[in-house]
Amino acid sequence: MLVLITYDVNTESAAGRTRLRKVAKQCENYGRRVQNSVFECILDQSQCVLLKSILNDIIDESVDSLRFYYLGNKYQTKVEHIGVDRGIPVDQPLIL
Amino acid sequence: MLVLITYDVNTESAAGRTRLRKVAKQCENYGRRVQNSVFECILDQSQCVLLKSILNDIIDESVDSLRFYYLGNKYQTKVEHIGVDRGIPVDQPLIL
Repeated sequence: MLVLITYDVNTESAAGRTRLRKVAKQCENYGRRVQNSVFECILDQSQCVLLKSILNDIIDESVDSLRFYYLGNKYQTKVEHIGVDRGIPVDQPLIL
Repeated sequence: MLVLITYDVNTESAAGRTRLRKVAKQCENYGRRVQNSVFECILDQSQCVLLKSILNDIIDESVDSLRFYYLGNKYQTKVEHIGVDRGIPVDQPLIL
């Protein structure tokens, strides 16, 4: 299923900036960055539980936030993009 | 239906910062900000077309991006939040 992950990490402190980098790094392991703080990930149920747990352990819940949007398997018609594109579709192979 | 709008606006220039403010302002007219560049809007089809057109006219497509995620009417189970909350649910009345 497609899981959209968006995050706001408070980067006023050095610790916050470290959290931001860690969140992005973990998301990169599971999907593609489509905007600065927005990742699209194709996950099964267990991967989703694991990633949520990892991210939850990184953030400071008193100042940061994570949101997960579950778009199911038939997500192609549920997403629209305008403007500059950062990457390739999440479910297409990367040909180098 | 719930429409999630995410945006990346390039703020390296003063014009970019103006575009960012305009995009946020327009989104505020239609929904609630859940994260810095993430809005949840309850829109019917015509409102959605209108808002997309307005935002499209504001951004610079060569450096900015907009993404729209269509979560339908049964969206309550499709959204999960962890951490600090910025606002009230999008479909609940604001009691002052």
